Amino acid sequence: MTIVPVILSGGSGTRLWPMSRPEMPKQLLSLTAEETMLQLTAKRAHGEGFAAPIVVANAAHAREIEEQLQAAGVTPQAVILEPAARNTAPAIALGALAAKGEDALLVMPSDHVIHDVAAFHAAIEAAMPLVAEGWLVTFGITPDAPETGYGWIQIGEEIGHGVHRVARFVEKPQKERAEAMLAAGDHAWNGGIFLFRADIFLGELGQHAPQMLTAAKDAMSRARRERSCVWPDAEAFAASPSDSIDYAVMEKAGRVAVVPVAMGWSDVGSWDALHAISDTDDNGNVHRGEVLAVDTRNCLLRSDGIRIAAVGIEDLIVVASGNDVLVLPRGRSQEVKKLIEAMKK
Amino acid sequence: MTIVPVILSGGSGTRLWPMSRPEMPKQLLSLTAEETMLQLTAKRAHGEGFAAPIVVANAAHAREIEEQLQAAGVTPQAVILEPAARNTAPAIALGALAAKGEDALLVMPSDHVIHDVAAFHAAIEAAMPLVAEGWLVTFGITPDAPETGYGWIQIGEEIGHGVHRVARFVEKPQKERAEAMLAAGDHAWNGGIFLFRADIFLGELGQHAPQMLTAAKDAMSRARRERSCVWPDAEAFAASPSDSIDYAVMEKAGRVAVVPVAMGWSDVGSWDALHAISDTDDNGNVHRGEVLAVDTRNCLLRSDGIRIAAVGIEDLIVVASGNDVLVLPRGRSQEVKKLIEAMKK
Repeated sequence: MTIVPVILSGGSGTRLWPMSRPEMPKQLLSLTAEETMLQLTAKRAHGEGFAAPIVVANAAHAREIEEQLQAAGVTPQAVILEPAARNTAPAIALGALAAKGEDALLVMPSDHVIHDVAAFHAAIEAAMPLVAEGWLVTFGITPDAPETGYGWIQIGEEIGHGVHRVARFVEKPQKERAEAMLAAGDHAWNGGIFLFRADIFLGELGQHAPQMLTAAKDAMSRARRERSCVWPDAEAFAASPSDSIDYAVMEKAGRVAVVPVAMGWSDVGSWDALHAISDTDDNGNVHRGEVLAVDTRNCLLRSDGIRIAAVGIEDLIVVASGNDVLVLPRGRSQEVKKLIEAMKK
Repeated sequence: MTIVPVILSGGSGTRLWPMSRPEMPKQLLSLTAEETMLQLTAKRAHGEGFAAPIVVANAAHAREIEEQLQAAGVTPQAVILEPAARNTAPAIALGALAAKGEDALLVMPSDHVIHDVAAFHAAIEAAMPLVAEGWLVTFGITPDAPETGYGWIQIGEEIGHGVHRVARFVEKPQKERAEAMLAAGDHAWNGGIFLFRADIFLGELGQHAPQMLTAAKDAMSRARRERSCVWPDAEAFAASPSDSIDYAVMEKAGRVAVVPVAMGWSDVGSWDALHAISDTDDNGNVHRGEVLAVDTRNCLLRSDGIRIAAVGIEDLIVVASGNDVLVLPRGRSQEVKKLIEAMKK
């Protein structure tokens, strides 16, 4: 059975502002390595056992995506350029319609980090027998903190080696509930990585969100194609409701399984998250770019342009990019959104 | 008796890096007002009672100085462009040689702030009778902190209304001694502002530093002149020893007086000093340029280019200029020099 990676590159998040911007979002940046997060994602499911990937992306990033994949030595079978953002369920529908019905789709956000790729591959291998039988599989990240920013999954009975029925999806919880789930030990984070047959997914979508399926089908049947690029019809796709795969399909479908896996996963959802997963120097600092730091501890100092010169600071995040420099204390990087809001005014 | 301001613009200090740089030092910047510190200095001794000033400056800044003075509506009688830096005594000698012997020279650093100009003028007026008699007068800043970064002056017996004999000059003291002097109440800071007749100063210089006087005379007699600009001969001036007016003349001369004065003086010798003398907003912040601050307190945030975006920070100094951004805690701005040293490596 062929595994086709479906890489979702629709995000335009602002949580890593000022480096991440609408024209150059997080997945297109080199945040954790020399390679960009998109390149790392593509290479994580490349080579033996994997077919050429399908990338679903914002049309504005077409050229950058093609260049980055080429530089990484990955040749996509299709780059589907969304005329509008409609959340993950319609995006995956476009990908599924570009694949063969019997393909197993490995759906991956393009802006996550997985340190232990072997563990990821082992989890995929464990999932495949059930995928072949028609199950929708999600990967449940072994939690190590009471995160309130993620959805959680309660792990049910084991239905295959290393594969469990999903007992329940839990939406982003309050702190207390997150702590209880972490303590209970039978919950995992929903990392947004999925594995299922294209035809099974489309069948479930037709059942639970038929408008979405119709819109995706219309958009693909009237798509413009050039080389591996696909431009779904804008008017047809605009008719699709906007919803996540979790709400539209996973929480409603019958045969939904989870493979719990500890694989050094991070969604790098904030500057604090990036600091947490980065190698630090002897003073606990993470530097990148032109940085000069004297008597500085436990800071994240990054620049893609101007020089950052620091003396005597502790527990600060300083990020310079383009014509902006961001300064905030560690632990408060979620508040970047307050700045974005203030800028809109 | 004519008072000729002699404005010393030789400084190329790095304590206000990254805004102050060798090519654009502190005195040429707008730090405390719309006007530059040079402009504020020139206007402080302009109009009734003052002759056109003599400016002694680094030749590299000739054009900028002329433009700034013109914009301030001040026409100098001479701009003497030093071919090399030889500290204040030789610089003042050049100025004195450009003036008439009977002129009273009001020597002022170009990079200090004086909030109470009326008090300054009153102090000048008090000093004039003794200046006419041939005294060298310095202005003693009423101290309000045990500063270890300034020289101090012990105030002796009153020899004229508001004018005292200098009992003693005290070099930059240790903290304990500074505290004792502050408590004693009979000491003032040496602000580097002087008033004396040109001929008296040159006479004392000839007595206590004859090489310096000879070099200055040679340099001026062989100077190139164009409009109000004067380029002293480089070779001749290079022969001058380098020394401050305090060491070379004031501490050695006989008839030296001090006028104690409280006039809201600051040498703006650091970013902390600038924060201390600036108006703050309701949150204790001092902003200038493109700054966006959310939930931020007691910070100095300045930019002359890129945007500074801050959330949740306190007691920090962030200064962006050109291709650099400086970040350090308030109270540690003297440590900018550590960065400058690190950059040289």
